[in-house]
Amino acid sequence: MSCVFCSIVAGQAPAIRIHEDDDYLAFLDIRPMVRGHTLIIPKAHHVDLTDTPAPVLAGMMALGQRVALAARASGLHADGSNVVINDGKAAFQSVFHIHLHVAPRRRGDKLRFAAGVLLRRDPAREETGRLLRAALH
Amino acid sequence: MSCVFCSIVAGQAPAIRIHEDDDYLAFLDIRPMVRGHTLIIPKAHHVDLTDTPAPVLAGMMALGQRVALAARASGLHADGSNVVINDGKAAFQSVFHIHLHVAPRRRGDKLRFAAGVLLRRDPAREETGRLLRAALH
Repeated sequence: MSCVFCSIVAGQAPAIRIHEDDDYLAFLDIRPMVRGHTLIIPKAHHVDLTDTPAPVLAGMMALGQRVALAARASGLHADGSNVVINDGKAAFQSVFHIHLHVAPRRRGDKLRFAAGVLLRRDPAREETGRLLRAALH
Repeated sequence: MSCVFCSIVAGQAPAIRIHEDDDYLAFLDIRPMVRGHTLIIPKAHHVDLTDTPAPVLAGMMALGQRVALAARASGLHADGSNVVINDGKAAFQSVFHIHLHVAPRRRGDKLRFAAGVLLRRDPAREETGRLLRAALH
């Protein structure tokens, strides 16, 4: 399967899953900019904003909102989130299966955020997944 | 009126408008990170993801998609866009009336983009507005 996100949907590639329903999947970004950095995808393969139907975007955003609120309520103690679709390679899209980023933020984390953009790692990924799942469900 | 975006909705504060309908307004960011940087807001006042109903977010995203596609088709010749909600002060939200950013991007504009994050100006705002409106309508 040539699309890594389709492989994750199919259970053929690993991911730390936060939420799954019939149409959408939320899982931790493998190279997180911040702790709890989550990707929301439709299970159906769409590339970017040029081919994704508006109702699919609405569903992605609804789940993204739930994850962002869960990050606030969770043991990650987020004070907010950046919620982002990078549409197209020119806009930093790197996997061409549309996805919504939810990057939980904390007050005073600007330097940590800047470092995270370069380092993109989380030494406690499993625990991060547990905290988000617990708050979401 | 204490909310600048409510003032823009009411016509009491200036803005270069890209689109308006009964429920939503799209206008150029006054401090654009890139040319064509547009904000999509609901006319009703909501603060952030903690109080904005999912259907309102869906409507914002639907219009944001239209603006992003218009930027591609327009004389701005965008190759993609960053589509962003900054939820909360910790996530760089600066006006507490929820808004969706659409930042049109072009291939090879990384340095220009980085400079834009610092400079945040567009010397041809009126022309930018005309180009986006022409492509959208």
